[in-house]
Amino acid sequence: MTTAESYYPNEPTTPKVVTSEIPGPNSVAQIKQLGEHFDSRCAYFVVDYNKSNGNYIVDADSNVYLDLYAQIASIALGYNNPKLIELLSTQEMKNALVNRPASGNFPAVELDATLQKVLQVAPKGQNQVWSGLSGSDANELAIKAAFMYYAQKKRGGDTVPFTEEELSSVMDNQSPGAPSFSVLSFRKAFHGRLFASGSCTCSKPIHKLDLPAFDWPHAEYPAYAYPLDTPENVAANKIEDDRCLKIVEDLIVSWKSPVAALLIEPIQSEGGDNHASAYFLQRLRDITLKHDVVYIIDEVQTGLGATGKLWCHEYADIQPPVDLVTFSKKCQSAGYWFHDPLMVPNKPYRQFNTWCGDTARMLIFGTIGQEIIDNDLVSQVSRVGEYLFAKLEILQTQYPESFKNLRGKGRGTFIAWDLPTGELREKLLKILKSNGCNVGGCAEKSVRLRPTLTFDEKHADIFIDALTKSVSQLNN
Amino acid sequence: MTTAESYYPNEPTTPKVVTSEIPGPNSVAQIKQLGEHFDSRCAYFVVDYNKSNGNYIVDADSNVYLDLYAQIASIALGYNNPKLIELLSTQEMKNALVNRPASGNFPAVELDATLQKVLQVAPKGQNQVWSGLSGSDANELAIKAAFMYYAQKKRGGDTVPFTEEELSSVMDNQSPGAPSFSVLSFRKAFHGRLFASGSCTCSKPIHKLDLPAFDWPHAEYPAYAYPLDTPENVAANKIEDDRCLKIVEDLIVSWKSPVAALLIEPIQSEGGDNHASAYFLQRLRDITLKHDVVYIIDEVQTGLGATGKLWCHEYADIQPPVDLVTFSKKCQSAGYWFHDPLMVPNKPYRQFNTWCGDTARMLIFGTIGQEIIDNDLVSQVSRVGEYLFAKLEILQTQYPESFKNLRGKGRGTFIAWDLPTGELREKLLKILKSNGCNVGGCAEKSVRLRPTLTFDEKHADIFIDALTKSVSQLNN
Repeated sequence: MTTAESYYPNEPTTPKVVTSEIPGPNSVAQIKQLGEHFDSRCAYFVVDYNKSNGNYIVDADSNVYLDLYAQIASIALGYNNPKLIELLSTQEMKNALVNRPASGNFPAVELDATLQKVLQVAPKGQNQVWSGLSGSDANELAIKAAFMYYAQKKRGGDTVPFTEEELSSVMDNQSPGAPSFSVLSFRKAFHGRLFASGSCTCSKPIHKLDLPAFDWPHAEYPAYAYPLDTPENVAANKIEDDRCLKIVEDLIVSWKSPVAALLIEPIQSEGGDNHASAYFLQRLRDITLKHDVVYIIDEVQTGLGATGKLWCHEYADIQPPVDLVTFSKKCQSAGYWFHDPLMVPNKPYRQFNTWCGDTARMLIFGTIGQEIIDNDLVSQVSRVGEYLFAKLEILQTQYPESFKNLRGKGRGTFIAWDLPTGELREKLLKILKSNGCNVGGCAEKSVRLRPTLTFDEKHADIFIDALTKSVSQLNN
Repeated sequence: MTTAESYYPNEPTTPKVVTSEIPGPNSVAQIKQLGEHFDSRCAYFVVDYNKSNGNYIVDADSNVYLDLYAQIASIALGYNNPKLIELLSTQEMKNALVNRPASGNFPAVELDATLQKVLQVAPKGQNQVWSGLSGSDANELAIKAAFMYYAQKKRGGDTVPFTEEELSSVMDNQSPGAPSFSVLSFRKAFHGRLFASGSCTCSKPIHKLDLPAFDWPHAEYPAYAYPLDTPENVAANKIEDDRCLKIVEDLIVSWKSPVAALLIEPIQSEGGDNHASAYFLQRLRDITLKHDVVYIIDEVQTGLGATGKLWCHEYADIQPPVDLVTFSKKCQSAGYWFHDPLMVPNKPYRQFNTWCGDTARMLIFGTIGQEIIDNDLVSQVSRVGEYLFAKLEILQTQYPESFKNLRGKGRGTFIAWDLPTGELREKLLKILKSNGCNVGGCAEKSVRLRPTLTFDEKHADIFIDALTKSVSQLNN
């Protein structure tokens, strides 16, 4: 019995599309109604979450889809997971929801146990956590920690007091109290949509237009030739890595303000599932150490198992471990991992806010983490990813035009490919929905697969059948 | 029977302090343990939320305090409210927690009803909502909406397309795509601790040090003579209003970058419970209209009833209504209210993120709002506030040195006063805890009262007794 079968005895066995158009009439009416007081223009369809089950999502018109998008890569175990439902009736959950604690000032007696559980799935080399509320928030909090750490170091240590000039200038948003430090990120990166995270984001203009930004640099993220494992591509991609590493180091040395931190996704997700090699990620460690730059890995989308490791950057075995790792999405909560005690600012109330996270969401994260361990879901994702990728490679030989740059081999179910144009990508996603599969895109013309961690071989078979049919319809 | 009595038949009848020191030994041990992997330096004591009830909070050492701080002003109804506990077992709550929706792309069939419920308590003149996750997040999202609105207007309307130069420059964090717009806020303001909200915050250096900030202006918030209602203070405060209004208008006209938005708290809370008059808030409307500046009211701490109106700025009856009102804290969720359809950006995915809020927290907000309406808790707060304030005025005549600038008359239980020094304020808060009352401070030397909305006359009596005893101990 697979994990999905044991969790979801009533999981549908096949998709079922009953409306001629998607969204169907009930979804259309509800999206319109919702639009009276909420921006509902991005809604694909309205969901009956109560009827959704396991890897299947059910809409307001009773269409049943196999879900390979999973709430923008954020459902770890599937819909209506029984272990999460059990968690709802615990006293801890009741306290966290009904008596939402300001965890910095008034932590709950159960907070330590909650964090211990979450820390079971921390990345290798990380043993502390600070909690936030979303991926953007996690990155902003990590950037704050990095700036404070960097400034303390520059100042000569965490015991050196602030100067009078710092204390007064900061109240006018001026340096030296509010220094002109920068964060180096990468072209095509997505780190969120607030103002510091947004200044690091460089995916699409629509994410950034009309918003003031910090004058921070974007280096180039390596653009590899796929597949990654042919000898000629290995050689070419090594040259690409070195080209991009030189840009990183040049920017750190020459940028108009000190580069305090480097922020990178191990696979750029929103930006097109662009992979970074172990060599690239390790060399960035060397460069950041050389120039005293805080190294932050953004695992918001890649984290918690989908790539076939708990944390994608563990493939690179970066030594010494990076300074900060951010998480959200499948964790259902958010925050950052770290290990250096000096990453905790030298005074209380510097990294602080009312709730300091959401313990209800942290409890859910703890349970998800426990289930991943108990069911060895990371190994399952590796196995299923390999199975799925092999089937996609066959499809690629049949329809090479519709499966350009197939990528994600050996990275679990974290798989993507390109269509020739954005228009064809949109058309394929639409046809896939009509054939009962909910799939997302990324960048201009890529398809990204983001199923849950309980997606197994039988789901892969159903998806491949629907995809085969869809691609043949696409080309008609 | 009071609302507290009907909600909380087992609410303690009196505080009970059983340890000689606070935090007690269990709290101390747990704070230390927590500190192994979480920044626990700001913890006052560790809380047994399960034993806490109504207006009483119970710590890990079984000390029972009357709580006038209420998780930094964020518990609306009291601990273990039965209506919120009931909500936990609903299908809607199960869906929101176990199947956390990406509400922008895949809204739940029940989302509209959730929002409708929340909209029942929208400020007068506002009928739309966008949801976020915290007070900082709410302010950042509102600032984003303001910038996009301002840019569209400047561009000549929401149908004017972006230029090629905007589309390319924004990817380098440069103008005109990333314009140098600014937000005007006020000295002593607190709007959060992320990078845009943090640039607006101007309360204490410790909130801002070592973090890059936008070069945005701070005007002066009126510093009134209290009490507000004596003829000589009325006259002096009007002069102060006009002085500060002139600074606002001068800054808007002369600031180095266009001022797109003005952000203000109707009572500066973290910054010391500084009040703004109806005249001041209305004249800001006139000035913002004159100069095409978006007017944002931050009701994160003042909102949802504690001031004796649902929203504090309703006292000012600002006409036409302000453009954006942010909320969080007692709402247990976060976001902003608005009414102008053009405040929705002209294209989808401009104001967007994975979850677009947290429907679980929005459901809780809906229930809290319904309870406030059904029990007319706003009127109760007014009544109890008047009762409490009168008692404090008597204490003030007895101990004038310990009750300077007593303020918040006619503003429900949103009451504060100053001690002569920060040291004495800290000492008073410590003595108050030893006498069974959990009370918070704000600014350098103020005490702020932030009880729940179910705090009633009998709680006020207990508090006044403890305060009287504490003040006499303070002076010994």
